Amino acid sequence: MPLNPALLDQLSAIFGDRLSTSAAVREHHGKDESHFPPCPPDAVVFALSTAEVAAAVKACAQHQTPVIAFGTGTSLEGHVAALRGGVCVDVAGMNAVLGVRPQDMDVTIQPGVTRKQLNEYLRDSGLFFPIDPGADASLGGMAATRASGTNAVRYGTMRDNVLSLEVVLPDGRVIRTASRARKSSAGYDLTRLFVGSEGTLGIITELTLRLQGIPEAVSAAVCPFPSVEAAMQTVILTIQSGIPVARIEFLDEVMADAVNRYSKTDHAVAPTLFFEFHGSAAGVREQAEKVQAIAADFGAPDFRWATSAEERTRLWAARHNAYYAGIALKPGCRAWTTDACVPISRLADCLMETRADLARCSLTSAIVGHVGDGNFHVMLLVDPKRPEDSAEAEAVNRRIVRRALAMDGTCTGEHGIGHGKMEFLDEEFGDGLDVMRRIKAAIDPQGIMNPGKIVS
Amino acid sequence: MPLNPALLDQLSAIFGDRLSTSAAVREHHGKDESHFPPCPPDAVVFALSTAEVAAAVKACAQHQTPVIAFGTGTSLEGHVAALRGGVCVDVAGMNAVLGVRPQDMDVTIQPGVTRKQLNEYLRDSGLFFPIDPGADASLGGMAATRASGTNAVRYGTMRDNVLSLEVVLPDGRVIRTASRARKSSAGYDLTRLFVGSEGTLGIITELTLRLQGIPEAVSAAVCPFPSVEAAMQTVILTIQSGIPVARIEFLDEVMADAVNRYSKTDHAVAPTLFFEFHGSAAGVREQAEKVQAIAADFGAPDFRWATSAEERTRLWAARHNAYYAGIALKPGCRAWTTDACVPISRLADCLMETRADLARCSLTSAIVGHVGDGNFHVMLLVDPKRPEDSAEAEAVNRRIVRRALAMDGTCTGEHGIGHGKMEFLDEEFGDGLDVMRRIKAAIDPQGIMNPGKIVS
Repeated sequence: MPLNPALLDQLSAIFGDRLSTSAAVREHHGKDESHFPPCPPDAVVFALSTAEVAAAVKACAQHQTPVIAFGTGTSLEGHVAALRGGVCVDVAGMNAVLGVRPQDMDVTIQPGVTRKQLNEYLRDSGLFFPIDPGADASLGGMAATRASGTNAVRYGTMRDNVLSLEVVLPDGRVIRTASRARKSSAGYDLTRLFVGSEGTLGIITELTLRLQGIPEAVSAAVCPFPSVEAAMQTVILTIQSGIPVARIEFLDEVMADAVNRYSKTDHAVAPTLFFEFHGSAAGVREQAEKVQAIAADFGAPDFRWATSAEERTRLWAARHNAYYAGIALKPGCRAWTTDACVPISRLADCLMETRADLARCSLTSAIVGHVGDGNFHVMLLVDPKRPEDSAEAEAVNRRIVRRALAMDGTCTGEHGIGHGKMEFLDEEFGDGLDVMRRIKAAIDPQGIMNPGKIVS
Repeated sequence: MPLNPALLDQLSAIFGDRLSTSAAVREHHGKDESHFPPCPPDAVVFALSTAEVAAAVKACAQHQTPVIAFGTGTSLEGHVAALRGGVCVDVAGMNAVLGVRPQDMDVTIQPGVTRKQLNEYLRDSGLFFPIDPGADASLGGMAATRASGTNAVRYGTMRDNVLSLEVVLPDGRVIRTASRARKSSAGYDLTRLFVGSEGTLGIITELTLRLQGIPEAVSAAVCPFPSVEAAMQTVILTIQSGIPVARIEFLDEVMADAVNRYSKTDHAVAPTLFFEFHGSAAGVREQAEKVQAIAADFGAPDFRWATSAEERTRLWAARHNAYYAGIALKPGCRAWTTDACVPISRLADCLMETRADLARCSLTSAIVGHVGDGNFHVMLLVDPKRPEDSAEAEAVNRRIVRRALAMDGTCTGEHGIGHGKMEFLDEEFGDGLDVMRRIKAAIDPQGIMNPGKIVS
């Protein structure tokens, strides 16, 4: 259904040639990196300021027309699909760093700034922003999906690292969710309400983020284990000992093999942990020694160290390329990625049951995990020409989610709900989902903000 | 206005002799530790289970009668005042620790468990719960006010340390806000919505909290400074250097003197910082050396160490008794306590301007601060028989809040809004306050949950 011509005229007056209804532009904005089919919006506007976003939302509100925010399109649960048509507001061009305050260790940015761009900008400041999902996502999108990544075990997720947001509400008003104070008890926590709201309550137009000091010393290591259980016991004891490990990442033997092939590394083909330690020179040494002793107790004495910056970069590039390494196992296939997260005490059980399940499955699969948080992803390789592959992946995903929920975990650790995981929210929250629905209806009574996502 | 007799009958059927309408019991439940006059509820019920809380709320909802939750009554902004009468639900008797899971480093408790009770319970587990407001508050109340205390600079506030809540909604339904997974991207962040909601959206009946490992080594020190600015520069550089200080507390010279008199200590009468370091033996030594070097650079070489557990206990007891030490400066007076929090770069300015303001004020006053977070409290000593004292304290408080807001800070760092600070929410949030009002109306359409608090 094409847009109301009066709305198109209004948008044209605001955006001029930054309004597009071309098929190619719409197609690009209707799909993310997930396996879901594209669902293009009716029009795309390329916003350059908060005022423009507010004007676009206001115009759409007048015409009861859906509005979908778009950053880099790297979400994984169909977050940007225009299920009911409408206008996509692309904020990628709002990519200015507005101010770094080293004394306060915070930064204010526009939502289109990506995580790599931000850290590049910060390079000489002695500060960095730790959160690193696989993709070079926009920080507006990362806040909207409550993203995390490999460093969350030490530095938390977007939930913990956003100090304040500027948000355009569904009626076009602009609010700021909090001051820059490090803590506050002033009223309902609007910042945390919008972090993870996936564009369904408003559009994020500015973010103030906490920064971390670049550690004085960093070291990293790779360690193969005799079994998945031994690796998990090492993880649990490391966390329980209060060792402030910065990264503790798991790869199963399939993924270790895939990484070797793809990144020309020679890791043992075994369940493997990748570690990183941040701190003072002495502190890093101490942490590493403790973890090494724990791993040895679980039968894994073979730590391979990467102490130079180059070695570390190579190691983590191999880890970050795990997704592509996995896909390369079966050329022509696409990846279906699951995202369960359980209490760490249940992680070994959850992984073992999942591996048994995967052994009965016809699809090639590999596992990676941010195991310090209890979060893991199964990559299922699906031939897009075989609908039975997708059906099987979907069934595996559903079983993984239900297994996680039964272990007091969550249906998504870091990818979000989009429209791909809505069916599980009821199981996870019961009447809590009704509270979410009431919040949605109260803040977006017309239901125009990214409709069909999180709550219906 | 007495309660509807039908409601009283219903409550009596549920609670038997755990329902009280006696003046003494009602009076006790209508006041907290603030300067506000008591405002007693019409009846008090002493709940022992979630089912009882749910039944009480359901009965009140049927009769459109206010419901106010009560823990230890140690709030500071009139949070428990029954401004529109109604039923107080005292949950102090719901004080069981339901389960500690050392592998997951979390614990599930009932809301009446106090922070000291919890840490006493955990004593032999190697774990502790870090958040320590001055009072031995109930953890349900601490969650409801988003409390913090001296350790927040290292361990965060209640916002960061609540994994999940069980909540009785305003219609009597019971929800759980989250699983026990360490992180989740599943829908709106209901946990953070209820943390800090001060009983206005529901009653917390169970909490799952993150725990920390008891550090291998702890050391503490006291250091007097030549000026407030020198102390603040030391704080800023300590935080900016990424030193994971566990506590960094400020006392002005009036408070240092008051503490000496009250706790028989002999600290220098000067602007003073109290430090605590947690970590491995080597890590603590390294942290302490770095901070000592920073302080020396700002003209404060005189660190007095408290390394034994006994010395540390004495030191922190003196700090925790600062409130009573302050009151003892003028026998017969009560304390009016402010609670501003600003970005740390503005803390020195905010403190200096506040000190200049206090110098023009006729009231005796002293300052303490959780300065690693940018949070400080001015204690103003008010003679309850002199209304002009209260008027002056109120005016000072208002100027402190406006000064903090002008510096991009918040009107309350950790005490909450209650009815004492509602006038400032509009200034702090603008249209964001409208979002809060909509949330309140959506979740509590009858407006029965702790009415007259946070939003009207």
